[in-house]
Amino acid sequence: PRDRSALPAYLVTHNHWFYSLDLFAALLLLSLATIEQPAVFHVRRAGGGARLVELFGLFLVGISIVMQLRWLGPRTFLTHRRSAVKGLVTWIVMLIDAVVVISRNKTHFRVTRAMRPIFMVDNRYLGGVRRFLRQILQSLPPIMEMLAILFFILLIFSTLGFYLFSPNQEDPYFSTFSQGFVSLYVLLTTANFPDVMMPAYAKSRWSAAFFIAFLGVSLYFIMNLMLAVVFVVFSDIEKEKFRKLLVHKRRACQYAFRLLVTCSQPSQVSFRHFHGLLRFFRPGTSDRDAFLIFKALNRSENGRLTRNEFYNIYDMCGYAWRTQVPPPPWFNGLPGPIRGCCYLIRRLIKWKWFDYFIYFIIIVNALVLITHTIILSTANIPITHDLHVTWDQITVVALYSVEALLKIIGMGPWHYFRSGWNVWDFAITALALGGIVAEEFADSFFYIVILRPLRLLRLFRVRKRYHAVFQTLVILLPRIVSAIIIIIITYYFFAVVGMEVYSQYDMKNCCVNTTVEQFYKEDNSTLYPDFYFLNNFDNIFMAGVTLFELTVVNNWFIIMEGYVAVTSEWSRLYFMVFYLVMMVVMSVVVAFILEAFTFRMEYNHTVLGDAVDGVSLK
Amino acid sequence: PRDRSALPAYLVTHNHWFYSLDLFAALLLLSLATIEQPAVFHVRRAGGGARLVELFGLFLVGISIVMQLRWLGPRTFLTHRRSAVKGLVTWIVMLIDAVVVISRNKTHFRVTRAMRPIFMVDNRYLGGVRRFLRQILQSLPPIMEMLAILFFILLIFSTLGFYLFSPNQEDPYFSTFSQGFVSLYVLLTTANFPDVMMPAYAKSRWSAAFFIAFLGVSLYFIMNLMLAVVFVVFSDIEKEKFRKLLVHKRRACQYAFRLLVTCSQPSQVSFRHFHGLLRFFRPGTSDRDAFLIFKALNRSENGRLTRNEFYNIYDMCGYAWRTQVPPPPWFNGLPGPIRGCCYLIRRLIKWKWFDYFIYFIIIVNALVLITHTIILSTANIPITHDLHVTWDQITVVALYSVEALLKIIGMGPWHYFRSGWNVWDFAITALALGGIVAEEFADSFFYIVILRPLRLLRLFRVRKRYHAVFQTLVILLPRIVSAIIIIIITYYFFAVVGMEVYSQYDMKNCCVNTTVEQFYKEDNSTLYPDFYFLNNFDNIFMAGVTLFELTVVNNWFIIMEGYVAVTSEWSRLYFMVFYLVMMVVMSVVVAFILEAFTFRMEYNHTVLGDAVDGVSLK
Repeated sequence: PRDRSALPAYLVTHNHWFYSLDLFAALLLLSLATIEQPAVFHVRRAGGGARLVELFGLFLVGISIVMQLRWLGPRTFLTHRRSAVKGLVTWIVMLIDAVVVISRNKTHFRVTRAMRPIFMVDNRYLGGVRRFLRQILQSLPPIMEMLAILFFILLIFSTLGFYLFSPNQEDPYFSTFSQGFVSLYVLLTTANFPDVMMPAYAKSRWSAAFFIAFLGVSLYFIMNLMLAVVFVVFSDIEKEKFRKLLVHKRRACQYAFRLLVTCSQPSQVSFRHFHGLLRFFRPGTSDRDAFLIFKALNRSENGRLTRNEFYNIYDMCGYAWRTQVPPPPWFNGLPGPIRGCCYLIRRLIKWKWFDYFIYFIIIVNALVLITHTIILSTANIPITHDLHVTWDQITVVALYSVEALLKIIGMGPWHYFRSGWNVWDFAITALALGGIVAEEFADSFFYIVILRPLRLLRLFRVRKRYHAVFQTLVILLPRIVSAIIIIIITYYFFAVVGMEVYSQYDMKNCCVNTTVEQFYKEDNSTLYPDFYFLNNFDNIFMAGVTLFELTVVNNWFIIMEGYVAVTSEWSRLYFMVFYLVMMVVMSVVVAFILEAFTFRMEYNHTVLGDAVDGVSLK
Repeated sequence: PRDRSALPAYLVTHNHWFYSLDLFAALLLLSLATIEQPAVFHVRRAGGGARLVELFGLFLVGISIVMQLRWLGPRTFLTHRRSAVKGLVTWIVMLIDAVVVISRNKTHFRVTRAMRPIFMVDNRYLGGVRRFLRQILQSLPPIMEMLAILFFILLIFSTLGFYLFSPNQEDPYFSTFSQGFVSLYVLLTTANFPDVMMPAYAKSRWSAAFFIAFLGVSLYFIMNLMLAVVFVVFSDIEKEKFRKLLVHKRRACQYAFRLLVTCSQPSQVSFRHFHGLLRFFRPGTSDRDAFLIFKALNRSENGRLTRNEFYNIYDMCGYAWRTQVPPPPWFNGLPGPIRGCCYLIRRLIKWKWFDYFIYFIIIVNALVLITHTIILSTANIPITHDLHVTWDQITVVALYSVEALLKIIGMGPWHYFRSGWNVWDFAITALALGGIVAEEFADSFFYIVILRPLRLLRLFRVRKRYHAVFQTLVILLPRIVSAIIIIIITYYFFAVVGMEVYSQYDMKNCCVNTTVEQFYKEDNSTLYPDFYFLNNFDNIFMAGVTLFELTVVNNWFIIMEGYVAVTSEWSRLYFMVFYLVMMVVMSVVVAFILEAFTFRMEYNHTVLGDAVDGVSLK
């Protein structure tokens, strides 16, 4: 806060209610895309409603900006780049735009809508997303340089390709220089291979060398190099951040230590002062834990902490302390016979053959399920939606339910639901149970019944290594979610632009006399229609699916060529830029997964004492 | 060697002549595939000739096996697994097979030919390839486990897909369980996306979720996880090897040290003994260098080495020593005026504007070349093979030649050709010069003229970072070559199998009434024919191109479905196994490039003192 007068605004803005309000406003603005033209849900008078909702959302965001302005002061506010961009530029532009739309009472070309995710990213809860964005920005310079190499190689090969293949009249891919460039750009994604090679290959077998050389250099070498460069930059950034965090903590420790020492003992801290600190720093710590932390920190065991000992406070506070004697089971307070029963159950579920039995059941269930499916498939019985539940399925679900019940009783609900695997088991079992029960009354629960195979995922509990993989997955989950949000935001941006530009075109039976004509045909002339006209920008969700297809890259050029045929050559820009952006985002995501995993696995190695490096080298 | 009597055989086998002979025999055997049925080169009486050459090659390999047997002794030979496999199993089998073919005088189904690369890998010069193979084998277990997960997810999704989509009559991709499995297997490679989704998507927009979930989990998550696992295993193996090497060197140092000390000074080595060691260990070392190494090792500067100082001998011997005063230029001995001239040239090429001028010329040349190509392309002038050389091209080539000449004179030929960049410059310039000169006499040198764009690669000299990338590339070259040899050997194996099984089928106009019919059509009914019938196994090179197409993965299922249509469902096995094998090899190659690059870059960081970690943490 700037000064005392700004404090109320500071306090108002920094609490969970306000953050949630801000997030709600951002989500509200984002969700507008579903009812604005071109809309997913055709609400009556949607245009006017959307405008009102938009103004409301902007008003909410405006409140948070004003508040921030209050407590930061206008000068700091302007120098804080993110706030300035969000507040003064985006917000004002969007407000003006919204007002203009309302006053003119009809929509115009509104690309400002693509800016909406900015409010979303700015939210307090999305710190991980911002960090990810920052990392993408930081790894941009080396990526750009690799892209320059790539572009350069592309130019060389398209010049070469033009001279080599353009004399061939049957080759539509290299007829002009720009056509050759586009063909090779698409070939970079492998999407038109081997088609792009075939006409030249039909003429001379040697032309295969050109394409193999191009793919070898650009795809297999440069692309991997790019991944390597991003990976190195990524892990450097991570290391640097880690170092900064450590330095930061160290400095905090020094400040705290200076406050805690008394005049009589200027270099040591007593337990009394230490305990006082813990009461502020970590209010939930019990007296016992505080004492244990103190004991653990105090290596010299003289009852007073030196500064070097004090430095470890962050680590020590991170540990959870467990008494050596396990706490009595929850059912200890129950009357005699029930308690005895519970003890028996507890011993049963701790028995190793109990687990083996469950695994056996799962495997048998899996085999039966797959055999059943195969029989159903080969017998050519049409699958109807009132597929009746067989008795074996009911038996198995009953067994699962009993197992879950026994475990809950034996371990106590609290302990049972602390393990993610148990929660998964429970959810699947409950779903299956619900599905079976529901099916007795109606046959509309078809979709729950076919979720059965998901139960097979329980098999992953069997092997230790999968355990490790899934554990890592759980630990990485927050950052994976950040990555997904980044991808969704990128999609949103491109989807809005795509909708504004392309939603007016109908792709059905388009592109006559182009190479992609057959994909867009909708008549009975082909045996299996291709339905490519569905890959359009008609509403935000269909645009999302189309963009996902572009992300997967396979056959993306068919979508591109389709829109090029109905609009102009400039449409390529949109698709090519999207590919480049997604390539950057994806390579950062891959580098991140690699980084996180290698770090995690090396951590496992070090901490769990595989001790490869344990042999003394020096 | 086993004992003294085996020494002659040992000496005979361990020299470069013998290795070369062995390699020649292996290559000879491999190259047989070009003239055997189905042949690339149709030589008259090729069958008989091939048999003779084969026997000759096997005879040569046999010699090396016998020699090895001599010096190793039968017992050691049998316990040395690689030798045993190579000699006793493969060789005998192949010999029998060859003899049988000759006696029956017609070829039969000979898959043993696929075993030929074994002799190749066994050659002394291909140690890098064997190391690579070993690394692939070592990273197999974790890959297998990840593949198991993948297979499992595939099963779950195909069950789900069967229940969800088989009621849709228009969906050919999920009509049966096995069809669904194949479709999802292909989808794993993205090769049939979005086609596989479109029929279901046309029916219900929600079905996109199924495919997005499948691709998200299997392609984007599990595949990257696999890469991460391979990467971790790979770098662990590298670290372990490095450690072993260090321990090995350390032990060698200890032995050497024990031999070098005298009785009077049991813990220190004098320069005289050290010099004696160097004369054996590194015969080329001059007296001056030996003294310098000794001085560098002797940190305590007392004229005698302790053991700890001695340990650094490997590092110290790796350094090249350069006198502070540069050696006099080569032209110092020439008569006066020429020498003066040479000094002027030397000063000219060291002048920084000289380099800038050359870069300027290259960029202008590049721009002119591309503009020229674009003009040619838009003007729609047919490119004839007697493309005449324009004057600007001649000027530029002349400039390049002068530059190369000046540099050779100024730096001396020895220094000039020591830099890889200069060699590249020289080669390209010489080629261009040769092309222009040749074109004056005949117009068949078209292909040299169109190699012009390669000169643009000189532009990479401009930026420092590209320098680093290319340097790394040069350092990694031997191992990249190993990787390429591994891939070629894998191709060879699959190509021979493919030729034996599939070369009898003609794919032209095949596959009527299947989904891939149109790709194999050869008539004038389509605007642009697809020529997929050329992706066959008619000879070893065409099989190689086909396998490359399968490696690139895009549209590989079209080739698979084609052969399934003309043979049987079991053909899928060949293609699916090939995909799995290539995926494993490719992920190891990618992991290797990643590993090598990150290592190299971190090395640069550390050695060149970017000093990120320089700040004291503790």
